[in-house]
Amino acid sequence: MQQTTAPLDRFYSVIPAGGIGSRLWPLSRADAPKFLHDLTGSGQTLLRDTWDRLTPLSGEQRIMVVTGRAHRAAVEKQLPELTDPNVVLESEPRDSTAAVGLAAAILQLREPGVIIGSFPADHVINGSVLFQSAVAEACAAADAGYIVTIGIQPTEAAIGFGYIKSDGGLDIEGAPSALSVDSFVEKPSPEVAEAYVADGGYLWNAGMFIARADRLLEEIGASEPELLAGLLELAGAWDTPRRGAVVDKVWPRLKRIAIDYSVAEPAAAAGKLVVIPGQFDWDDVGDFASIAKLHSGGRKANLAILGEGARVLADSSSGIVVSHTGRMIALIGVEDIVVVDTPDALLVTTSANAQKVKAVVDALKLSGSSDVL
Amino acid sequence: MQQTTAPLDRFYSVIPAGGIGSRLWPLSRADAPKFLHDLTGSGQTLLRDTWDRLTPLSGEQRIMVVTGRAHRAAVEKQLPELTDPNVVLESEPRDSTAAVGLAAAILQLREPGVIIGSFPADHVINGSVLFQSAVAEACAAADAGYIVTIGIQPTEAAIGFGYIKSDGGLDIEGAPSALSVDSFVEKPSPEVAEAYVADGGYLWNAGMFIARADRLLEEIGASEPELLAGLLELAGAWDTPRRGAVVDKVWPRLKRIAIDYSVAEPAAAAGKLVVIPGQFDWDDVGDFASIAKLHSGGRKANLAILGEGARVLADSSSGIVVSHTGRMIALIGVEDIVVVDTPDALLVTTSANAQKVKAVVDALKLSGSSDVL
Repeated sequence: MQQTTAPLDRFYSVIPAGGIGSRLWPLSRADAPKFLHDLTGSGQTLLRDTWDRLTPLSGEQRIMVVTGRAHRAAVEKQLPELTDPNVVLESEPRDSTAAVGLAAAILQLREPGVIIGSFPADHVINGSVLFQSAVAEACAAADAGYIVTIGIQPTEAAIGFGYIKSDGGLDIEGAPSALSVDSFVEKPSPEVAEAYVADGGYLWNAGMFIARADRLLEEIGASEPELLAGLLELAGAWDTPRRGAVVDKVWPRLKRIAIDYSVAEPAAAAGKLVVIPGQFDWDDVGDFASIAKLHSGGRKANLAILGEGARVLADSSSGIVVSHTGRMIALIGVEDIVVVDTPDALLVTTSANAQKVKAVVDALKLSGSSDVL
Repeated sequence: MQQTTAPLDRFYSVIPAGGIGSRLWPLSRADAPKFLHDLTGSGQTLLRDTWDRLTPLSGEQRIMVVTGRAHRAAVEKQLPELTDPNVVLESEPRDSTAAVGLAAAILQLREPGVIIGSFPADHVINGSVLFQSAVAEACAAADAGYIVTIGIQPTEAAIGFGYIKSDGGLDIEGAPSALSVDSFVEKPSPEVAEAYVADGGYLWNAGMFIARADRLLEEIGASEPELLAGLLELAGAWDTPRRGAVVDKVWPRLKRIAIDYSVAEPAAAAGKLVVIPGQFDWDDVGDFASIAKLHSGGRKANLAILGEGARVLADSSSGIVVSHTGRMIALIGVEDIVVVDTPDALLVTTSANAQKVKAVVDALKLSGSSDVL
């Protein structure tokens, strides 16, 4: 398909805003998911930060948000500029292939040749110029038919992220830094992470995908033909009076599969996936240890304090306190501690155990304590 | 003075119920001092436990409680059997010599020859028969003119208690186990505590004093004549219409001094103090580490949970959680942790730092946060 407009002019941002962020319980809840929190101290939510990062690229008329029905009001409050056609509501979560694939199918019908970029609603990025330049390269590579991801140049041997193994430069017009992707690798052990960083060919997987909508749908169809058929049926009805009936029939039966598995890994295996190395600061703020690090400026001995009106009295204690209750919190001689204080639930753990918070949420579900989830 | 009745028949219990228990903040507060809490899981307050321990010895008509005006209602609620003449209210705290000395002076006027025993309102004792037998011996020694304390046979090299150094048996009728006291020694270092226990001649100072009221007043007069004069003036007016006026004039000017310094140490130096070794279990439950130990049955890996309706989800964490809020408390991978959860204040520390809680209370006072004290 010969296009007359520049790739970035055909760019549309998609923000899947779905994940609760269980590892941030009891701050993140079913009714107050991670993307609705200010975890950076910026004064606004991660969702709003994401929106503000994308408007210079696509304009506020070209950002679609895919979120749960339950979060519609909160999302619209955060994003008053968001227009109705750009809101895609899920009646229930069906994972990222369904969410991003539906956005792609709707947008492709409305605007053939559109290039979409999917960006998580709850990550932290510093360095907007570098981010924009990476997305511009990604658009050029997407226009050339590739599925594109933006990988982050590791700054340390992190074990909390997946990695992307690249295997050499490509010659793509407008995307001089594009590398072909050999494979995706899961969260490594500390030793393996050290080896990845020493190797230099590994990037952090930041969950960002940029592609022409038609190419993305083609990849979904290659690995999950039934899922694609459902998405096309939904998209065909979306801008018609039949939307409600078709959603009720089709959406609950869509296969739950992450886009990493349905699209990224098969595309990588087929040599159709490229990565643009991002030079900006990025963090998925996946757990409280990560938030503590973000706020302590990397100094281990510091105590990070989050929450409006938090009252904390601490001696030499270090770690992070998150408080939205206004209660007096006294810490004595606790190191790398994590204290999260909410009106109905309290978490006390350590940075080293921060990844285990999800297990607590699972245990609470099993024990019938869903009132605090 | 020749008495015709047996010493125990002239015995009167005195319970000074004054100390807040700052090391148990935020559980203990100015308006909810330590003695009004159930720290043992017995289902009743430490004050009530103390009362129940003393009624078999003196009968409920012969137990006097010295407490602050602010605590009158709470004390009377705990002790409905307490009669009006047995309530001594302090307009402000003036330390233990004033509290116990006033009780002694009032009782001596009402009943010459009375033997009084002063027992802290907020300690834990297991073994009531052994306790009663120790008090009976103490009464016999008191009747012989001694100032008597009950020392606890150490079960470990505790560093949180003061010690009593004994120096040999005495021949006192009715008090076969009485030892003369060489001196009182302050809370020792761990090494010194080990040496005390190895020595065998050291007992824990449990803050219990038994003496004839006239002898106790004599000792106060010897070291603090002005204080004694004030106490006698108060006692003279106590059962008359002049009580209020004299209290207002005299009480606020009484010297603040612990009975350990005004009576026990001088009496020990003069060879007039004896100790009855107590074989019962005793603890001053002075900090959260001590409460944790009490509840964990001595097993270090255990997590003690206190508080009605406490909801705690913990993995392998150990230590103590005190919760009266009904909030869900999740602990992950924290060892020897102390979490005290109250509606307006939260404490997070470790057993090893439990003694430092008082410093937090001092810091809160200084920083103007007395709303949570």
